[in-house]
Amino acid sequence: MYELGIVRRNITRADRQAVERLVPFGVATVHEAQGRVGLMQPTMRPIYPGAQIAGTAVTVLLQPGDNWMLHVAAEQIQEGDIVVAACTSDNTDGFFGDLLATSFRARGARGLVIDGGVRDVKVLTEMAFPVWSKAISAKGTVKSTLGSVNIPLVCAGALVHPGDVIVADDDGVVVVPAASAARTAEAAAAREANEGEKRAKLAAGVLGLDMYKMREPLQKAGLKYID
Amino acid sequence: MYELGIVRRNITRADRQAVERLVPFGVATVHEAQGRVGLMQPTMRPIYPGAQIAGTAVTVLLQPGDNWMLHVAAEQIQEGDIVVAACTSDNTDGFFGDLLATSFRARGARGLVIDGGVRDVKVLTEMAFPVWSKAISAKGTVKSTLGSVNIPLVCAGALVHPGDVIVADDDGVVVVPAASAARTAEAAAAREANEGEKRAKLAAGVLGLDMYKMREPLQKAGLKYID
Amino acid sequence: MYELGIVRRNITRADRQAVERLVPFGVATVHEAQGRVGLMQPTMRPIYPGAQIAGTAVTVLLQPGDNWMLHVAAEQIQEGDIVVAACTSDNTDGFFGDLLATSFRARGARGLVIDGGVRDVKVLTEMAFPVWSKAISAKGTVKSTLGSVNIPLVCAGALVHPGDVIVADDDGVVVVPAASAARTAEAAAAREANEGEKRAKLAAGVLGLDMYKMREPLQKAGLKYID
Amino acid sequence: MYELGIVRRNITRADRQAVERLVPFGVATVHEAQGRVGLMQPTMRPIYPGAQIAGTAVTVLLQPGDNWMLHVAAEQIQEGDIVVAACTSDNTDGFFGDLLATSFRARGARGLVIDGGVRDVKVLTEMAFPVWSKAISAKGTVKSTLGSVNIPLVCAGALVHPGDVIVADDDGVVVVPAASAARTAEAAAAREANEGEKRAKLAAGVLGLDMYKMREPLQKAGLKYID
Amino acid sequence: MYELGIVRRNITRADRQAVERLVPFGVATVHEAQGRVGLMQPTMRPIYPGAQIAGTAVTVLLQPGDNWMLHVAAEQIQEGDIVVAACTSDNTDGFFGDLLATSFRARGARGLVIDGGVRDVKVLTEMAFPVWSKAISAKGTVKSTLGSVNIPLVCAGALVHPGDVIVADDDGVVVVPAASAARTAEAAAAREANEGEKRAKLAAGVLGLDMYKMREPLQKAGLKYID
Amino acid sequence: MYELGIVRRNITRADRQAVERLVPFGVATVHEAQGRVGLMQPTMRPIYPGAQIAGTAVTVLLQPGDNWMLHVAAEQIQEGDIVVAACTSDNTDGFFGDLLATSFRARGARGLVIDGGVRDVKVLTEMAFPVWSKAISAKGTVKSTLGSVNIPLVCAGALVHPGDVIVADDDGVVVVPAASAARTAEAAAAREANEGEKRAKLAAGVLGLDMYKMREPLQKAGLKYID
Repeated sequence: MYELGIVRRNITRADRQAVERLVPFGVATVHEAQGRVGLMQPTMRPIYPGAQIAGTAVTVLLQPGDNWMLHVAAEQIQEGDIVVAACTSDNTDGFFGDLLATSFRARGARGLVIDGGVRDVKVLTEMAFPVWSKAISAKGTVKSTLGSVNIPLVCAGALVHPGDVIVADDDGVVVVPAASAARTAEAAAAREANEGEKRAKLAAGVLGLDMYKMREPLQKAGLKYID
Repeated sequence: MYELGIVRRNITRADRQAVERLVPFGVATVHEAQGRVGLMQPTMRPIYPGAQIAGTAVTVLLQPGDNWMLHVAAEQIQEGDIVVAACTSDNTDGFFGDLLATSFRARGARGLVIDGGVRDVKVLTEMAFPVWSKAISAKGTVKSTLGSVNIPLVCAGALVHPGDVIVADDDGVVVVPAASAARTAEAAAAREANEGEKRAKLAAGVLGLDMYKMREPLQKAGLKYID
Repeated sequence: MYELGIVRRNITRADRQAVERLVPFGVATVHEAQGRVGLMQPTMRPIYPGAQIAGTAVTVLLQPGDNWMLHVAAEQIQEGDIVVAACTSDNTDGFFGDLLATSFRARGARGLVIDGGVRDVKVLTEMAFPVWSKAISAKGTVKSTLGSVNIPLVCAGALVHPGDVIVADDDGVVVVPAASAARTAEAAAAREANEGEKRAKLAAGVLGLDMYKMREPLQKAGLKYID
Repeated sequence: MYELGIVRRNITRADRQAVERLVPFGVATVHEAQGRVGLMQPTMRPIYPGAQIAGTAVTVLLQPGDNWMLHVAAEQIQEGDIVVAACTSDNTDGFFGDLLATSFRARGARGLVIDGGVRDVKVLTEMAFPVWSKAISAKGTVKSTLGSVNIPLVCAGALVHPGDVIVADDDGVVVVPAASAARTAEAAAAREANEGEKRAKLAAGVLGLDMYKMREPLQKAGLKYID
Repeated sequence: MYELGIVRRNITRADRQAVERLVPFGVATVHEAQGRVGLMQPTMRPIYPGAQIAGTAVTVLLQPGDNWMLHVAAEQIQEGDIVVAACTSDNTDGFFGDLLATSFRARGARGLVIDGGVRDVKVLTEMAFPVWSKAISAKGTVKSTLGSVNIPLVCAGALVHPGDVIVADDDGVVVVPAASAARTAEAAAAREANEGEKRAKLAAGVLGLDMYKMREPLQKAGLKYID
Repeated sequence: MYELGIVRRNITRADRQAVERLVPFGVATVHEAQGRVGLMQPTMRPIYPGAQIAGTAVTVLLQPGDNWMLHVAAEQIQEGDIVVAACTSDNTDGFFGDLLATSFRARGARGLVIDGGVRDVKVLTEMAFPVWSKAISAKGTVKSTLGSVNIPLVCAGALVHPGDVIVADDDGVVVVPAASAARTAEAAAAREANEGEKRAKLAAGVLGLDMYKMREPLQKAGLKYID
């Protein structure tokens, strides 16, 4: 349930060190490491390939066709934040462009995650300012209706609290609750170590069927081989 | 309302000089400069990133699964034109490929905007022939039903008259009426000059809140800051 | 009609030589050469541009949110195969990632075509393991319900039999029945030869209207030119 | 190309008698009668089945999430009008509900066609106030940004001029230019008469193959019958 | 893989008695009874609620925007058939209306299943001629390109052979292979008998948890109850 | 962030009296009364028109293609509850049918809201058991993977806590937090009273322009009337 017309100035950000540890794992591993939850819908796509970031969420609730609150949010950004913007209704307008990106970067933002549209993507790409969005649209927006900043909100199907960790790469965007960032980083590291070994075996031609000991459960489930 | 079976040979193209002036501004700026109108729907995406063009519209009305009229349109192309194709119903077939691109380029076309599908996109990319479309599909088309060439038509939600200026880049496609091309170029230039200054301030950490003097209207609208 | 819980070990693969001959033609030409049939829906997109492959189909029927059968399929892969995966209902989960890709490659697979989601796309791109999918999603899957391997199935609207030739490039994915691979390669070669000549003429400014002798049928169809 | 902040008070409405003649034919017949043009996209659906109306268009250009202009439009409605509303960007908010319907009816409106969302559909159904829309949504709208009234606009892919005839039924919505309303009514009547005869023959078991003399052209096209 | 320009006159229809036995079970039960396979995608919706039919498939492959083959198919219809139409590419035009319905009914057809659009739905509803389609559109079609009749084809994701049983109701459409119609009817009857008992127990307040003995497997899977 | 494998038995339901007071207002009024928040996406549609209910939420998190948790949820239902089900990924399978409805009703449920598919809709309609869903699909589901019951979750874009009030009608579904149910009922009653007066005025031909005193703000915003 959303409060409108609110800006929360003091939010509890996830532990910085835990955030940095999460960067190299990427979205798929982090998502698994915390039990397959917290993923945004696959409609959220990067505007250019290859970016991989993690940061703490400054959340923004927008009104359709109106980017006023992104300007309000800029003041709340601290070094290492990622702005996460949702809209009160489905809208693909270009809420964000290169001027706002310049301002966000000057404040320390690492990127933007927006369940709406962005524009100036050629310039954003040249600036290497990463954005995950559901649309690209040159249609600009007005500045006339209040939303909110730093309230808990739903972005592309995932619940985000201000200060949560956002991890984003070519696979999409995942949210890690601030309180469990360190534990998730731990779990991700364990997983990754494990994956290195598995990769070597698989590259050598060992089958997942054998490595994961699947032959017996498959037989029990009734799988029949036909020659 | 569409006339079928018509080819208009004499159309009034926008002033060439005005067209050239519009190229560097890009879609977002031109769209703003003419009052936020004339944008095609964000379903129109470039087949490769980085292209930015402007040109005068040769319009083509296609029938679903039929590209006959693109061949008819080729003859009407002049140096500096962009072909703008719509279809009488929703269809994603590959109406256009590298052979037609070779022909269009030989006639002087700068690109294609099509509310349908295209194919041979690898070759088109190698040729650097830019296309904005809503789909990529290898499905070819027949040549059996008449549409029209150079009639006013609706492409991806925007009304296009033959001779209008089309500006297209990574943000999408915008239409500028032939009559207002010079005025829009003027307005875009003014806007762009203005943006340079703003960008410098924002990069230096000045907030949009202050630069745009938003604090007072936000307070009036009832925005509350909570610590 | 699908059988569940089945793995067919002996399938008849299309003639290897015919498969290799099909690679350079690409999807659009192959699709035309076999009479405009066998194309998957344009929702199937490559995870990175530029890949162009052909191979023999190992088919996999998945259950939603479950990639168990991909592990089973790995054992059935032979040098030169392409895995083709469909799902019993619409689902965009990330069924496939870099570990499975490592295994598939070790077995000789040339790529994956999946009417579902994939993940680890940055790593897959670095590995140059090509995938055509309808979504990218970091959401992993369980291993608990049986599907089948090497049964005839429908993938993105196209019917695929195990052993059929799959051709995939930036334009999409097309299926060539094993029995007609050689004949289709023949037809594609004839088409391609023909296209070289046409391209030269078109580049020289000859119109398709004249080259394809369209003026008379257009006139008969009632096309009117207006000055 | 849209002008914003404009209300045109004097518009030329299609001949009233021609409008009334068009009502009973329905959308499919009218669409055929004027040469298969002017149809809105099939995303436009009636909120309840069975309504069939025709009327003259009062056009409204809305901003996303904002229904201010519908109130402005109410004053321009005359007996026999249908309000046709488009939005400057894709938006499914509930722009229209039972209060506005009460007002529109009091002014003489026969219905609403809106490329956006509506709400209070249970009450609208009880009132028998017909609406064609692309969405149903309880989300209300603000009243803060100007659009325009009675300008030419594109609604669901069709170009509508103020005063044009709108015909709407369970099949969708079609636009008939004011100037050709009488001629189209004539053509529709001819078509309909013709259809009565055909229907009787078909009901008696005569095949369209014979009635439309299709056997010869099918044979020429190469159709093969196989026993 | 589709053959074009083919009409197969002699097809093997499923046993009539088995077809009639399948009618009362409906789609969900039949789908379960044959092992959860053969269902068309949920985009296929009835034009009016309440119809429930079963019949033998006469299949039609259409070209986009072209309904020529439906006229050819009419001649192949026998008492108790259902026409199943697919299109070579995604298209929502109104391929079918009340005249064709009159003809189909005169030939003995029980309904139409079409992965495309239909029109005249008000009249079709009054005629009680049931249609399952993915769209309603008044846009008519031409008659100029060959498809095929009575070839195996993919309709809304399901493979249909001529003569297969089609069962359709408010839940969607399912295909039963001709050869297994009797066996599936048997299985459906067993299922239905079983469901009557279950329904009585559940209505009396017995929980599925107990009736299906789920408490132990849930506990084993790790479900935790928290007060 | 979701916990899996959890069933919360003790939840705090909204005040019963407040819930009952909310029923007659309907979704649009309740949504306005609480400040235009809490609405589910317009993809959530009733399976039959005319139902209007309010109740307290029992929440269910499902896995794709798996309805095990709905059986677990049945035991947690109390008189006056509405079951609200979301899925860990996008899936349209038929999770719910007439047997589960029989069980839910026996436990006191007033309806189901599910961001997925349902089946047996003909029987559900005859039973007058109302369901709001995003799809209708006969495809059944397995019972093999744990989700959770009575955790906070996101359903069709709205955040729902167990015990919150759900109001659903032909316009969609809205969530009212348990704590503010009484206050929202109050606000809705005030709104409704007010609407009665307005309706009478509008029916008498008074314009919203005058009733809402919009002429001055419109003039200030720059609206121009052209004769």
